Amino acid sequence: MKALIITENEAEDIEVLYPYYRLQEEGIEVKVASGKRGQITFKHGYWLNADYAFDEVNPDEFDLLIIPGGRGPERVRLNKAALEIVRRFFESKKPVAAICHGPQVLISAGLVKNRKLTSWHGIMDDVKAAGGLYEDKPVVRDGNLVTSRMPSDLPYWMNEFLSAIKEIKATA
Amino acid sequence: MKALIITENEAEDIEVLYPYYRLQEEGIEVKVASGKRGQITFKHGYWLNADYAFDEVNPDEFDLLIIPGGRGPERVRLNKAALEIVRRFFESKKPVAAICHGPQVLISAGLVKNRKLTSWHGIMDDVKAAGGLYEDKPVVRDGNLVTSRMPSDLPYWMNEFLSAIKEIKATA
Repeated sequence: MKALIITENEAEDIEVLYPYYRLQEEGIEVKVASGKRGQITFKHGYWLNADYAFDEVNPDEFDLLIIPGGRGPERVRLNKAALEIVRRFFESKKPVAAICHGPQVLISAGLVKNRKLTSWHGIMDDVKAAGGLYEDKPVVRDGNLVTSRMPSDLPYWMNEFLSAIKEIKATA
Repeated sequence: MKALIITENEAEDIEVLYPYYRLQEEGIEVKVASGKRGQITFKHGYWLNADYAFDEVNPDEFDLLIIPGGRGPERVRLNKAALEIVRRFFESKKPVAAICHGPQVLISAGLVKNRKLTSWHGIMDDVKAAGGLYEDKPVVRDGNLVTSRMPSDLPYWMNEFLSAIKEIKATA
């Protein structure tokens, strides 16, 4: 199984690194895409190398998508290739996990209307304005989409995401 | 089940936060102890509140011990109450996980002689000088002790630690 993290400079370190290592723990191969290949430096100074630029990604080669938060999503949402990746995951109903400011990317991709989701409180009004059915809970699942609010929700987020993966895989 | 993380200011953020959230994901209650109660700030700026000062901890109330790395262990190892906590976990053969510079605490507690373990490369000579049987691998298990070298080993470290917990619990 292969997972893709889409992120950018100034993402929230722990929201990238927790799923990055957690999915590896499950034996899942994890790749990172960003605006360009090479080093991405997160808010607190941790960094990873992006394996792909967004426009080099073939989403059909991946099973799972992760959209971390922080100040990364405001950059990711401006990249058309990134939005195409996200739309393709939704079209094929593959599991997608977003946290904190991650749903900003979903808004720009036009994917939150009538979907139950949560996000960082500060963007709650944007989620609602885009037609999202906002819930203030540690984790919200709606079909293929699993969302959380902030770092302290990480255990809920990944636990629910792994359940969703197993369930979607079993019914695929 | 209850876990205790012993750490200090300038610990390696991800080596505290990964087990902190990962064990919660398993439904384990996680508490933090340090030189004094209150905020501990890690190397990259993440922080947690210490629930206990070291001398307030009753190790018999906990099932698991975690010793993260970074520059925390050089402070932890100077605290006699912290060393007593670690010795008590070893006496009662409860699972202990240490990573990176974490084994510095094991050295000062006199617990590495003839034990197989790994650590950050930079303290390898100290581990050997203390009689430890050093192995350069992502994770090394010797009985109740599970050790790793650095952040990229985190998936191996926690996977092996969770296996050790299940096994030790089954035979207890």
